[in-house]
Amino acid sequence: MRQIVMVGFLQAQNCTQLASSWRHPDSYRDFDTPDYFRRIAQTLEQGKFHLAFFDDRLAMPEYGGDHRRIVEAGVRCVKYDAVTVMMVMGMATQRLGLGSTYSTTYYEPFHVARVFATADLMTNGRAAWNVVTSVNDKEAQNMGQDSHLGHDERYDRADEFMDIVLGHWNAWEDDAIVFDRKRNIFSDPDKVHRLDYKGKYLRSRGPFTVPRSPQGHPLVIQAGASGRGQEFAARWAETIFVAYPNLIEGRRRYARQKEMIAARGRDPEDVKICRLTFTVAAATKAEAEDKMAQIESDYRDIDGLSLLSEALNFDFARKEMDEPFTDAELASMNGMLAMRDRVMELAPTPNPTVRDFLRITQRGKPHDAMVGGPREIADEMEEWFTTRGCDGFVLAPTHVPGTYADFVRHVVPELQRRGLYHKDYKGTTLRENLGIKRPLAADYWRAAKAAE
Amino acid sequence: MRQIVMVGFLQAQNCTQLASSWRHPDSYRDFDTPDYFRRIAQTLEQGKFHLAFFDDRLAMPEYGGDHRRIVEAGVRCVKYDAVTVMMVMGMATQRLGLGSTYSTTYYEPFHVARVFATADLMTNGRAAWNVVTSVNDKEAQNMGQDSHLGHDERYDRADEFMDIVLGHWNAWEDDAIVFDRKRNIFSDPDKVHRLDYKGKYLRSRGPFTVPRSPQGHPLVIQAGASGRGQEFAARWAETIFVAYPNLIEGRRRYARQKEMIAARGRDPEDVKICRLTFTVAAATKAEAEDKMAQIESDYRDIDGLSLLSEALNFDFARKEMDEPFTDAELASMNGMLAMRDRVMELAPTPNPTVRDFLRITQRGKPHDAMVGGPREIADEMEEWFTTRGCDGFVLAPTHVPGTYADFVRHVVPELQRRGLYHKDYKGTTLRENLGIKRPLAADYWRAAKAAE
Repeated sequence: MRQIVMVGFLQAQNCTQLASSWRHPDSYRDFDTPDYFRRIAQTLEQGKFHLAFFDDRLAMPEYGGDHRRIVEAGVRCVKYDAVTVMMVMGMATQRLGLGSTYSTTYYEPFHVARVFATADLMTNGRAAWNVVTSVNDKEAQNMGQDSHLGHDERYDRADEFMDIVLGHWNAWEDDAIVFDRKRNIFSDPDKVHRLDYKGKYLRSRGPFTVPRSPQGHPLVIQAGASGRGQEFAARWAETIFVAYPNLIEGRRRYARQKEMIAARGRDPEDVKICRLTFTVAAATKAEAEDKMAQIESDYRDIDGLSLLSEALNFDFARKEMDEPFTDAELASMNGMLAMRDRVMELAPTPNPTVRDFLRITQRGKPHDAMVGGPREIADEMEEWFTTRGCDGFVLAPTHVPGTYADFVRHVVPELQRRGLYHKDYKGTTLRENLGIKRPLAADYWRAAKAAE
Repeated sequence: MRQIVMVGFLQAQNCTQLASSWRHPDSYRDFDTPDYFRRIAQTLEQGKFHLAFFDDRLAMPEYGGDHRRIVEAGVRCVKYDAVTVMMVMGMATQRLGLGSTYSTTYYEPFHVARVFATADLMTNGRAAWNVVTSVNDKEAQNMGQDSHLGHDERYDRADEFMDIVLGHWNAWEDDAIVFDRKRNIFSDPDKVHRLDYKGKYLRSRGPFTVPRSPQGHPLVIQAGASGRGQEFAARWAETIFVAYPNLIEGRRRYARQKEMIAARGRDPEDVKICRLTFTVAAATKAEAEDKMAQIESDYRDIDGLSLLSEALNFDFARKEMDEPFTDAELASMNGMLAMRDRVMELAPTPNPTVRDFLRITQRGKPHDAMVGGPREIADEMEEWFTTRGCDGFVLAPTHVPGTYADFVRHVVPELQRRGLYHKDYKGTTLRENLGIKRPLAADYWRAAKAAE
């Protein structure tokens, strides 16, 4: 039976997805210690979440030409290495799947393949890699380059990147290791493959140095929202994160994304589409609304303005609040283009203002949050799930672990009672818990040979 | 009082430093699980080791043109990402320092700075980075390049790399974070510095995104043995790993390295020099000799031959066992040049043979091992330490955790009885336990200003 996939959307830093979260009275000061992340991990596992994954950027946001206002207001200015923090959570849990974002634009594929394959072994088959192409020039400049690659070129490079990572992850066949001390046979050389990949942007030789994990290899997750991003996800992703704005639009896009997956010759049921969702849960709707009022009062305009600047690779301090963007300025934006396009589509005039961007994107706010008691939130999730607006949810917390503790306490039992959500983990690996088939390396090489 | 610094020398893979280790009857099959590494970590912490650190290469060894013989014989063919494994050990311990090797040739400094700064926070101030410039073309080819940089050019690049990493690690002053929710002041913008580094090889902008750790920033460790490597260590390292072949030579080189450190204006006592040492310990000398016989019997020539090929970037299968290397072949070697130079110095003829390389380097064998009961090994260590051949030891295990378990059981109590080794950890951070001063970020910026 089809059941909801539940994912925690995490930040390896001082804030959650919501920049204002550190100002919340129930947030913790110890964001620079392992205890902070263990607390989150254990809350999620208590609620039987399938997966928790870390977002990432390779630079802090800026506003008004530098970082001063951002570090003062604490707008997501701390950013740890996601995999390192993920390992803290992995060692504090037994079944929770664990994912991290690593960029295809600024890392070498051999390195990324090795980091995640290692994490997959060290968590006994619970690791996932969230593939991003990165968004802005500040990231480029931290990583030794002048400016960010163009949107489509980033994706072309990312396709090659995936070829290499998947090739390396399949280098050791599942039964390659023999470990016969007496005969001095550690592994079967016929079952260890060298990739020898040479693409337009990237190359890597091999043989890869990490054998297979209990789930075969790490799960591939992706969140591209643009047309090119959706194509990329259809080709590579095993779990897709989406930000569908409402149910009608969600059903349309969900169906389209699944069709794109099928068109690639893949089983659409093997790819889970999870919708980014804020929840504010309590015992009753009235209590939840009081909580929401607190969360909204924590917001400052610097949150939205700096996060827009980061996502669109454009310093919003250059514009007054009600000044329309010129065509040239809109065209110069880079990064998360689906966001810009949505603002241009929904703004009252062809050239939106800063205020339009803030209002339509609700950047830095818990937009479209599900606010309520157990019944209200379960109803809303049930409708999204059963009418195929999504296969599950990526829960963005307003503060941690508070949001998750509330959700696990109030909503999870109601979803379980309705049979919509598993009562316990079905297996030990992430793939087993998601019900996604375990890939075999031997199949990979058979397919590669057939394609020659 | 001066006391011995004890360091575990680890490999994130199927073998220890000794390629034959997997063949040892007491080795474990579960090298692809976290339990394998937790077992090692807990044994080391039980023995109050200051630090455990992981060696690394970005490619498996090869011999005879490919990997077939290496993967069959299990010669260090598995290589995990070291930091990911290190985090497993960090989460299973409370006081043990934890280091990993990351290459200055194949990674971006922003990434390396962020990974280790994160690990330092997540271990509450116990992380160390072992700086290497990498050694061979196979690593280059896995990482998207044709061939490895020349020896001295690698070090020039590494100097710039250190400038960036140290600059980023000092970006947030120690008291930068305010965390005042009511006034919406997360941090003091005057105490968060942007690096804006532009060198010949490398650049990185900043501001860095990870605040300071309880020990300031990760410890820098290094093991360069060539002249250029020793200069590099004198400038940057806080702990140096050496492979001094005997005590007379050791004392000479130790004194010289300490002079080089002083010449840089640094306090030589703040830099610990630790000697790579194999130990085979037991209750009695006779028992230890039996153990050594087992270890020696596990060795195969493919171990030494493939590890020489890896370290010197030259396929030793091209030569017969007793065929002298030509001058051109010797000159073409790259990688660990101090090793080649030592063979050329000690070989009976100017042009050494493969057999000379095997015999003189003892690659793949537990060369110069301290074999004995508690008294014999403590005596030898005491002489090295008190006569200033070293400040401590980097213990290379013949198998894990066996070597360490034997050492902790038989030798540690004897060293403690003699007052040569601490009875317990002195503090919580790695720097506290090593007795190395905690750096202040404000001092870094004062010095930078003064140098302008």
